[in-house]
Amino acid sequence: MTAAPSVRPTSTSPESDALRALYADWSNIIATTPDLSMRLFRSIFDEWHQPTREPEDVTYREEVVGGVPGIWALPAGADASQVLLYTHGGGFAVGSASSHRKLAAHVAKALGVTAFVLDYRRAPEHPHPAQVEDGVAAFTALTERGIAPGDITTIGDSAGGNLAVAIALALREQGKPLPGRVIAFSPWLDMENKGETLVTNDATDALITVPLLEGMIAGVLAGGAVPASTPLANPLYADFTGFPRLYINAGGAESLLDNATRLAERAEAAGVDVTLTVAEGMQHVYPFLAGNAPEADAEIAAVADWYRG
Amino acid sequence: MTAAPSVRPTSTSPESDALRALYADWSNIIATTPDLSMRLFRSIFDEWHQPTREPEDVTYREEVVGGVPGIWALPAGADASQVLLYTHGGGFAVGSASSHRKLAAHVAKALGVTAFVLDYRRAPEHPHPAQVEDGVAAFTALTERGIAPGDITTIGDSAGGNLAVAIALALREQGKPLPGRVIAFSPWLDMENKGETLVTNDATDALITVPLLEGMIAGVLAGGAVPASTPLANPLYADFTGFPRLYINAGGAESLLDNATRLAERAEAAGVDVTLTVAEGMQHVYPFLAGNAPEADAEIAAVADWYRG
Repeated sequence: MTAAPSVRPTSTSPESDALRALYADWSNIIATTPDLSMRLFRSIFDEWHQPTREPEDVTYREEVVGGVPGIWALPAGADASQVLLYTHGGGFAVGSASSHRKLAAHVAKALGVTAFVLDYRRAPEHPHPAQVEDGVAAFTALTERGIAPGDITTIGDSAGGNLAVAIALALREQGKPLPGRVIAFSPWLDMENKGETLVTNDATDALITVPLLEGMIAGVLAGGAVPASTPLANPLYADFTGFPRLYINAGGAESLLDNATRLAERAEAAGVDVTLTVAEGMQHVYPFLAGNAPEADAEIAAVADWYRG
Repeated sequence: MTAAPSVRPTSTSPESDALRALYADWSNIIATTPDLSMRLFRSIFDEWHQPTREPEDVTYREEVVGGVPGIWALPAGADASQVLLYTHGGGFAVGSASSHRKLAAHVAKALGVTAFVLDYRRAPEHPHPAQVEDGVAAFTALTERGIAPGDITTIGDSAGGNLAVAIALALREQGKPLPGRVIAFSPWLDMENKGETLVTNDATDALITVPLLEGMIAGVLAGGAVPASTPLANPLYADFTGFPRLYINAGGAESLLDNATRLAERAEAAGVDVTLTVAEGMQHVYPFLAGNAPEADAEIAAVADWYRG
């Protein structure tokens, strides 16, 4: 993958271009393959792990937790009583525990905890709220094993960042104990597909486009059967009263930037303890560059500081 | 992935059908996608890891060894002085260290050793002998680090099984010390694309077809510039005098079965200590089912017994 320095902001590292280049390649495939099947869509998005370096000193274990299959990432010396419940991104339709294994492992290792990466049921075969239900089921199963709810962090990226928020909202709705913290990397929340940065960052975002999101929305909302303002599908409509500490990030170059900022504003207005970081020039879910680019490593270190704070 | 019991031999486990189903799915994509690009070909073959369960108690580390990038699989308690130099399959053109990470880790764990899975240069961008050169370079670099040549095993599957053999042959040709052992899972050797089982097992092999192999041969032999009888590209033409202990397996259902049997015959005729196992009803590179199907686990246990023998 060749860097294109003429279009890359000089403030970003050369190594970070690997993620932009992968997105540009996917966008090229999407643009040049008529009727790209969901099957092949899933195949290319399972390459999402490629910009992430294998983290050292982490082992893995497949398990089914609360009926939901997934992969444990177990860093050496991690505190097994603290768990990241990781919901992967991919528009609710693509991505997998495999595509996000290394990313979740890097975060878990930095925080000194374990992570369980869910293979939740995907759209369009399983529209909303299947994904939220799977997250709640896994969360509940972890608590039934003796993990304190407050020692569980729901965390995810893109559509999985939406789920990390929605799982906590659903637990509150059901009167269950909440996770201690929620982390959303480049969350995608706006199922109405509006937002200024879809336009203003269109030229710099190498992956996300309005038509791409339209397709994903049709899938998860069952072609419109689920209203786009449903709070558990679109947390920009949710009441954040009593919500846990919330960490949000985004890349400055991405079209979904104002999903992150709008989430932060809404949660802060409800009195939530919110931390928002925006990394100039970076693409969607730039922590995927963990182990390979300084921006991702610095961000994951910042998440660790926040976690312990 | 749904089992199709009517066509599956009753002697194979239900779990083993996952590999056949993945191959059938790939074959369907190949058959129904006109002009499937090499880019998408590589994408679907990177799913080769899916039938393999994450092995427990193994960590990973990316490194460049002798100029060749790859992934170390480091089982807990493994003897770091013994190394499997693993060359992945995929017709010299597709597959990767990532697609074979879990498989190599299962084998390394069973043997109590470490494994380095090479991301060698792939065809058609890099025709023969680039792949063999990369293997020799990594082998030599390991010995320069102090690993005894006899404690290195060259191992691979399919085209990577060819490479595991060819790397040892190339080392002998260069007057260098040889690996102590060579392991070839479902090796693909015959660059002339002949062999009875291409016909007799065509109905039971869910992946391999003569046209598929033709395309791969054109890539690695540079459209015919490299003769198909070149011993380092087609070890069925090689002299096996003084070759290391050799373990070969194959699935009974696969079209490449007689690549394995012909290799065994040729090596035995030269006085090599050869072990050949054929598992009835199994598909190409059935050890990919490690951790998920008893046939794969039994075979890897047998390889471990052979290794220690």
